[in-house]
Amino acid sequence: MPSSKERSGENRHADITFQPEGRRLEIKVGSNIIDVARHAGIDIQAPCGDLGLCGRCRAVLKSGGALLNPPTEAETGILTPTELNEGYRLACQCVVSKPGSIVVTVPPESRIGQQRIIVQGVMPSFKVSPMVIKTLVRLKKSQDLEDIDADSNRLISALKAHGYAASSISLEAMRRLPEVLREGDWVVTAVLWGGREVLSLEPRDTQERSFGFAVDVGTTKLAGFLIDLKTGELLATASLPNPQISFGEDLISRVTYWSESEGKGRELQQVVIEGVNKLIKDACKDAGVSPSEIYDLTVAGNTAMHHIFFGISPQYVALSPFPVAVKTSFDVKAKDLKVEANPAAYIHALPPIAGFVGADTVAGILATEIYKTEETSMLIDIGTNAEIVIGNKDNLTCCSSPAGPAFEGRHIKHGTRASTGAIETIWIDPEDYSVGYKTVDDSKPRGICGSGIIDAVAQMFKTGIIGRTGRFNKSINTPGVRTSGRETEFVIAWQKETEGQKDITITSRDIQEVLLAKAAIYSGASILLKRLNLKHKDLRRLYIAGAFGTYVDLTSSLIIGMYPEIPVSRAQFVGNTSGSGARMALLSSEMRTIADKIAAGTKYLELAADPLFEKEFTKALWLPHREEERFPTVMTMVGKH
Amino acid sequence: MPSSKERSGENRHADITFQPEGRRLEIKVGSNIIDVARHAGIDIQAPCGDLGLCGRCRAVLKSGGALLNPPTEAETGILTPTELNEGYRLACQCVVSKPGSIVVTVPPESRIGQQRIIVQGVMPSFKVSPMVIKTLVRLKKSQDLEDIDADSNRLISALKAHGYAASSISLEAMRRLPEVLREGDWVVTAVLWGGREVLSLEPRDTQERSFGFAVDVGTTKLAGFLIDLKTGELLATASLPNPQISFGEDLISRVTYWSESEGKGRELQQVVIEGVNKLIKDACKDAGVSPSEIYDLTVAGNTAMHHIFFGISPQYVALSPFPVAVKTSFDVKAKDLKVEANPAAYIHALPPIAGFVGADTVAGILATEIYKTEETSMLIDIGTNAEIVIGNKDNLTCCSSPAGPAFEGRHIKHGTRASTGAIETIWIDPEDYSVGYKTVDDSKPRGICGSGIIDAVAQMFKTGIIGRTGRFNKSINTPGVRTSGRETEFVIAWQKETEGQKDITITSRDIQEVLLAKAAIYSGASILLKRLNLKHKDLRRLYIAGAFGTYVDLTSSLIIGMYPEIPVSRAQFVGNTSGSGARMALLSSEMRTIADKIAAGTKYLELAADPLFEKEFTKALWLPHREEERFPTVMTMVGKH
Repeated sequence: MPSSKERSGENRHADITFQPEGRRLEIKVGSNIIDVARHAGIDIQAPCGDLGLCGRCRAVLKSGGALLNPPTEAETGILTPTELNEGYRLACQCVVSKPGSIVVTVPPESRIGQQRIIVQGVMPSFKVSPMVIKTLVRLKKSQDLEDIDADSNRLISALKAHGYAASSISLEAMRRLPEVLREGDWVVTAVLWGGREVLSLEPRDTQERSFGFAVDVGTTKLAGFLIDLKTGELLATASLPNPQISFGEDLISRVTYWSESEGKGRELQQVVIEGVNKLIKDACKDAGVSPSEIYDLTVAGNTAMHHIFFGISPQYVALSPFPVAVKTSFDVKAKDLKVEANPAAYIHALPPIAGFVGADTVAGILATEIYKTEETSMLIDIGTNAEIVIGNKDNLTCCSSPAGPAFEGRHIKHGTRASTGAIETIWIDPEDYSVGYKTVDDSKPRGICGSGIIDAVAQMFKTGIIGRTGRFNKSINTPGVRTSGRETEFVIAWQKETEGQKDITITSRDIQEVLLAKAAIYSGASILLKRLNLKHKDLRRLYIAGAFGTYVDLTSSLIIGMYPEIPVSRAQFVGNTSGSGARMALLSSEMRTIADKIAAGTKYLELAADPLFEKEFTKALWLPHREEERFPTVMTMVGKH
Repeated sequence: MPSSKERSGENRHADITFQPEGRRLEIKVGSNIIDVARHAGIDIQAPCGDLGLCGRCRAVLKSGGALLNPPTEAETGILTPTELNEGYRLACQCVVSKPGSIVVTVPPESRIGQQRIIVQGVMPSFKVSPMVIKTLVRLKKSQDLEDIDADSNRLISALKAHGYAASSISLEAMRRLPEVLREGDWVVTAVLWGGREVLSLEPRDTQERSFGFAVDVGTTKLAGFLIDLKTGELLATASLPNPQISFGEDLISRVTYWSESEGKGRELQQVVIEGVNKLIKDACKDAGVSPSEIYDLTVAGNTAMHHIFFGISPQYVALSPFPVAVKTSFDVKAKDLKVEANPAAYIHALPPIAGFVGADTVAGILATEIYKTEETSMLIDIGTNAEIVIGNKDNLTCCSSPAGPAFEGRHIKHGTRASTGAIETIWIDPEDYSVGYKTVDDSKPRGICGSGIIDAVAQMFKTGIIGRTGRFNKSINTPGVRTSGRETEFVIAWQKETEGQKDITITSRDIQEVLLAKAAIYSGASILLKRLNLKHKDLRRLYIAGAFGTYVDLTSSLIIGMYPEIPVSRAQFVGNTSGSGARMALLSSEMRTIADKIAAGTKYLELAADPLFEKEFTKALWLPHREEERFPTVMTMVGKH
C-alpha cells in the first residue's frame, strides 16, 4: 500500500483535518474547503452562499496554509492584517492548490450551533373538527351467491348509515379493500377526508389512533407538530434549521439557485422535503406513532418557501410586481411530494396573500384572531421581511417591510441565531456601564441573537452610551467603549468570558443596521396606519411574532422605536404563530375556510409603491424617532441626552 | 483467458444454444431451461405456468442431453416413448445438472408466434364529448404593483369568462404556471378535465393536439387505441400478447401467483403496465404523437385483469361468491400507476359487473347498444369464460359460463392462438372428405385457432364424419380418419403441408373439449332465457364478440349448437367490443355515465347456483342438442346421420 501522502500525490489530493472534531478527509486539488466541510457535515456557517461577502465562515489554518491559494480580495477586505497573520481565512475562499496535509480549526463563532427554535406560538381555543376523521363501520358480510355486491358498495352503504356521504375511495384503500374487510371480519375503521373520500381502511377498531402533522416551513428553520386529531393534543414537536441554508441563507439566493436549472429547483425542493421527513420521523419516534398513521398534514410558510415546498416556480415572486402563483389553499397527496406519511394522506397548503406576505402571516392572523375582533389590532411578524397587518373583523390590510436580517443576528458583527451560547438578554448598569447578560442554555457566550441586539441598543440608548441618531456619546468614559479607526464599539462580553477568542461587541455599524431594520418596521406600520386613517392610539392590541429567542423584550423594542408607541400592556409577544396557524388548520376544517377568506380578503399594500415611505423611513432612523412627540413615554423613560 | 468451458466449469455454468435463433446463453447449474429462455426473450409457450401439465413447451435436445436431469414423471406422462427417443423434452421440466454445452431446438408448435389480435370491434356513432378538452385563454397581464393578483386567480377568471368553472389546478400545472403564462405571453391553452380540473397548461395555442388512449386489457392480449380527442379519429392501434402469460395463461394461475406475496402481486401489475406503456409508445410513434400529449386514458378488461391492473387484490374475485372489490367506475392519475402518459393525465376504469362479468362486458353492452333498444338482444363474449347478456332498454341480465379454453385453441391437441400460421377457416368436401383451409397470414399451418376449431367440428358433423354425440362415424372410409389406441382423429393438414413435424388433426378428445365449451355457452344462454321467461325467437339480435381470428363463422357456430337457434341473419360477429367500449368512454363522458348505469343495473345470475344448469348442460353436449326440436333449421341443414 502506498502511504497516504504518496497516494494523495498521485491522485492530486490533499488530506485535510478539521479541528476540534479531528475529522480527516481527502480533498481534491482545486476543491474548495467549505464544500468539503459541508459535505462531511462539519458545522460551519455560510450565509452568503460562498460568495466571500459575509465573512462568517472563518477558519484558522493551523498547518498547510502554503498548500492553499493566497488570500483573495474578498478576504483581505474582511479580515484584518492581524487576523490574516494569525492564519484566519474565509473557508469559502480557500482552494487547495497542492497535495499535502492541511489542519484547520473552525472556531465557535463560525459554527451554526444547535439552533434554538421557538416552535410554539400562542394559540386560541377553537373547536376540534379535523378534515380527517376515523369512524368504525360494520359491513354487511358477503354471505352467498345470491348476495354478491361489490366490497366498495358495502363500504359506501355502511358509511352512509353512519351519516357519511363518501363518494370516492383512494387507490390505496381500494387496493387493500378486499383483504382488510375480511381480515377485520367485516369490522373496519374508515379514515375519511372531508367526509367524502375514504383515504384508508384499517381492520377492526383503530379510532383511538388518528394523527396529523403541522409544518412551519421557515426560511431559517423548519418546525413540525405531531397532533392527535381526535383530541387536538400536541404529542411531539420537532425542529431543524432549514437544510436549504447550504444553498444561501436568504430567499433571494435560493430563488436565484432555483432559476438556474430545473434540476437545481428540484434539489432545493427535495432538501426541504427531506427536512420535513426528518421532523416527521423525529416527532413520531418521540410519541410512539408510525409515520403511516399520519393521515393529514398542513404547511405554512412564507410565499417563496411555500412555492418551493410544493415545487411551484418561485422566481416571479421575487420580481416586481411580485406575483404569487397561487393564493388559495389547496390539497395535494403527500406521496406526490414524497413526504413520508401515509401514502393516501393529503397535505393542505395554507394560502399566501402576496409575494412577500405569505401563508405564515395568514397563520399569524388565525392564531392571534385579529380577524374576528371589533377592536383594531396590529400584528408584526419579524424576520428578514417584517410582515405587518392591521385590522379587525371588517378589514385587514397588510404590507411587508424589508427589515433586513439584523434581528435574526445577521449583518451584525457578533450576531448569531438564537442557538446555544447566543446572548439573548442584556442589561447595562446606568452608573458604571457594566453589562449583564443571559445566554441561550446559559452557555458561554458565542454571539448575540436578535432579542439581545434589541436589548443592547435600547440599553445603550437608555444609559446614554449612544444618542438619538445612534452615534456613540463621546463624553461617556468607560473601558467598554473603544474606537479603532473609524469604528467605535461597545463590549458586551469580554473575551475571557466567551467561548471564542474575541470580545463580543456592538459596533457603530451594528447600531446602524438595527436602526435600518427598526425604521423599516416602524415606517411600514406608520404608513399602514396613515393609509387606514388610524392613529396609533386606535390600536387596541399589538402582537409581535417571530423567532428571536425565547421572547423579545417589548419595552426594549418600544425604546428603539420599532413600533408606534402604544402602552406596553397592550402589546404581546406571540412567538411562532406560523406554526400555531398550521396546527389550527390541521385541527379544524373551519379554520381552513377562514384562512382562505383571510388570504382573499386581506388588502395588500406595496410599500415600494408608496411615496411616503422614503420620508417616513428617514425620520424613523432616529431613536426612538426624529419626531419626539410620537414617543412621549419613551422620551420620559430615557430622559434627555 | 480461460476457455468458455473451463469458465463454466469453475462457475458451475453451462452454455446453452437455442435453435433456430442461434442464441447462446450461460445457464447456472440447477437452473430451469424455460426460465433462461423466457429471460432471453426466446419465444416459447408455457401456458400452465411451468407445472409440466400442458405439454406445450416442447423442446428438442440436439446435444448435451446428458447434462440435464432425466425426464420427469410429467414428461413421461405427456411425451411418447418415440418422442423421448428423438430428444423431445418439456422445457419447463429441464434442469441443468452439469456444466457443458447444450443445444436445444424450439420447434414451431412450441412458439407463441406473432399473435394476431383483433383490435377493432364494432362501434356505433355517438357524440364526441370527451372528459378532457383544450381551450385557449388570454389572461389579463400582470402590469404593475397595483395589480398583483395570483397567477392562478387570473387563470380561473379567464376560464370562467370562457364558461368553465374550474375549481382545481393539478400540482403539475401549478408548478409550471408562472413560467407558462409568461412564456406564452399570457396566451395559454388550458387542458381541462371534466371542465373542473386544470390538468395542464401549454403556452400559446395547442388546441389542435389533444389525444387520448383507450386500452383493452385482456387475459391473453393487450390492445391500445390512440385517439384524437378533438375529432374522435382513431390515429393508431397497437397490440401485444399480455406479458403476464409468462405467469400462467389463465386467470386463476395469475390470481394464485398474486396471492403468494405482495411482491408477486406488484410484479404481475407491473408487467401488464409495462405492456400498456409499450402500446402507448408504439401507437404514439406510429402517429407522431408524444406520450406526454395523452391527457386521458380508459381501461376495459375482465374483472381479474381490471383488479390486477389497478393493483387491487383480485384473490376474492376467484373465490365463491366471487365478490368484486369495486363495481363503479373511478379515475386515478396515470402517474400513480406509472403509466407513461402526461403525468397529470387520469385513467378511467370502466366498471365491472361481477367477479366473472367484467368491464369488458360493460364495454360490449355499450358498443352493441343493446341497452337502448326496445327489442331484446343477446350478447355472447367468448373467452375462457363466456359472458352472456340478454336484455333491452328496460332490463339487462347477464351470466358467465365456464366455456373453458377450447375456443382460444387451448386444451386442443393442435390448438393455437389466432396468430400467424393458425388455421382459421376449414371446409370439408362432403364427397371425398378432403379438407380445405385458410391460415392467418396465409403462412404454412402451425395449428388450429378457435374459429378453425368451430369450423372443423361443424364441418365434420355436417359431412357425417362425426355423429350427434361427437363420436367418429365408423362407417366413414377416408385416410383422414385414423385410430391409434383409444384415440381417433381426423387429419386437417398433413405434415408435408405444415411448418412442423406432425400432421395437424382434430382428435376425439378435442371434439369433447369443443362440446363441453359450446354446451356451457348454450346452457348459459338457455338458462338466462328461461329465467327471463323468454323464448329464443324473442331474441331479435345476437351479437358474438371475441378474438377468435378475424371472425367466427356464425353458421358453423349455430351448427354445433353454440347458441339457441335463431336465424343467422339476426346474428352478427362484433369482434373486440371491449376495445370499442373503452374508446367510446374515452370520447364521451356521457358514455361513462351510461357504463356506470349498466354496471349497477345489470342483474347478475350465478349459473353455479342454478339447479337447472347440470341438466341443461348435459343435453347441450349433443350436436347441435339432444332435443332436436330446438334446432330444426340445423337438423335440416345437416340431414340425418
